[in-house]
Amino acid sequence: MSEFRNHSKSDRPMQIGIIGIGLIGGSLSLDLKDQMGIQVAGCDHSPEHEKIARSLGIIDKIIPKDQLVRESDIIVLAVPVHQIEVEATSILKSINSHQVLIDTGSTKESICAHLATHENRNRFVAAHPLAGTEHSGPRAALKGLFNGKKNIICESEKSDQDAVELTARLFKSIGMESFHLSAAEHDKHLAFVSHLSHVSSFMLGLTVLELEKDEKQISNLASTGFESTVRLAKSSPETWAAIFDKNARHVGDALEQYINHLSRFLELLRANKKEEYIQLMKEANDVRRILDGIKV
Amino acid sequence: MSEFRNHSKSDRPMQIGIIGIGLIGGSLSLDLKDQMGIQVAGCDHSPEHEKIARSLGIIDKIIPKDQLVRESDIIVLAVPVHQIEVEATSILKSINSHQVLIDTGSTKESICAHLATHENRNRFVAAHPLAGTEHSGPRAALKGLFNGKKNIICESEKSDQDAVELTARLFKSIGMESFHLSAAEHDKHLAFVSHLSHVSSFMLGLTVLELEKDEKQISNLASTGFESTVRLAKSSPETWAAIFDKNARHVGDALEQYINHLSRFLELLRANKKEEYIQLMKEANDVRRILDGIKV
Repeated sequence: MSEFRNHSKSDRPMQIGIIGIGLIGGSLSLDLKDQMGIQVAGCDHSPEHEKIARSLGIIDKIIPKDQLVRESDIIVLAVPVHQIEVEATSILKSINSHQVLIDTGSTKESICAHLATHENRNRFVAAHPLAGTEHSGPRAALKGLFNGKKNIICESEKSDQDAVELTARLFKSIGMESFHLSAAEHDKHLAFVSHLSHVSSFMLGLTVLELEKDEKQISNLASTGFESTVRLAKSSPETWAAIFDKNARHVGDALEQYINHLSRFLELLRANKKEEYIQLMKEANDVRRILDGIKV
Repeated sequence: MSEFRNHSKSDRPMQIGIIGIGLIGGSLSLDLKDQMGIQVAGCDHSPEHEKIARSLGIIDKIIPKDQLVRESDIIVLAVPVHQIEVEATSILKSINSHQVLIDTGSTKESICAHLATHENRNRFVAAHPLAGTEHSGPRAALKGLFNGKKNIICESEKSDQDAVELTARLFKSIGMESFHLSAAEHDKHLAFVSHLSHVSSFMLGLTVLELEKDEKQISNLASTGFESTVRLAKSSPETWAAIFDKNARHVGDALEQYINHLSRFLELLRANKKEEYIQLMKEANDVRRILDGIKV
């Protein structure tokens, strides 16, 4: 905790301000205020979200955004990705050289490009804590959501060193190791290991729902394997459409490659080439290696 | 327990014989012998599996298949689907009119068609307990795997009523409700809510592994969302290729529809038609309704 207090240049205790109290902002607040004893202020464009966050004790205090930006040592933007650019541009204009603005968006190329020439770009840190669930809003906030997982910091060379170090310490305090990547690498990689999984789930859900129109019994037959692959189809369409939109090129590439693999499998299945499709499945088994590194 | 003992026509305690002591056979044995106190005998074509099952105490005794078939009141076939037809044909020839043979395969049309004219078809019950994990072999056996889940019985009109009732009671005793379906309905439905999920996961794994050849860092970035959608890609290729092969027509149809949905999504994404793809995602959200009925 002391490293955060030291950062504050005034005598008052350090304050972190979180804009957007949904799954990410709310979970972040729960960990910071309860584990670190840091004062967390928050605001949300939805008065309903603010009310829920207050009644669930997710945040220490709800204050207007202007006041939050003025008062907070660290400002965290946890809003949907299509709102980050406008919000960050405006907030960066008004912060001083001791404050830090961190975003937590799931895409990074567009936001980094948008802020590249901002006069206060050095006080901005482009972060992406790799954690989430299929739920959204303040009620989805979970203690310990980030613990043991990874945080990506992009284009850290454009941020002041103290700002990057403070960000890494902030995420470290809630159990996250930070890695550095270029924004382009980030968006390409995430298209494959996160965004594609969401498209895959949404469309799997749609495929089964279409069959259900004629076959009512199908909901009796769904089991845990189906649940696992289709869970992400419960995610917020608004949040994820914004991510797909911001990362359309890479998501498109990943999806095209996925469709190619599925089409090849279909061709082999219909041609009765069992030895060939079993070979593809054996290669896919190697994904164990990647999964072994994930803390669930 | 008494309803099983009553079924036994001799003075000796009832015995259930399980052929194939993997995930399904092993888990079934654990529940039956520990919860119901029924004697369970087992055999497996793999001496290694038999040794593991014995050392882990999964089964009461390992005996040769011939003896198991001769001695057991209920014989459960828990072998991969491509072995069921040959095994069932041979076992049915040698059982008496008090014994029951139950299979647990994930496809039902082919096995039902194969046994349709067997002289002892009436002593066979085509079952499919809807439970599993991505692991296989006797070490994957889990207590309580079946609890709260569903069992399907196909073409029960071709089985003796006492055999169907005994099967339903057997699965009831380990926490499963039994439903009746035609074999054709079963295979079509399962293609969509189970088999397709496996193809989807295997190919998602392959897509990411292919990128990993050039992008080593990707394994650092995989998170729980990816884990969820790709978990089934760890499943046994042999077990699942046999299922895809036996249910090739329905799996092919399901996969084709899935590819069509993905292709439509890709088209909308690349045409920047955000309002249209967000609409598809909203429709997919309705999968919550199906998932709410699944006990995880």
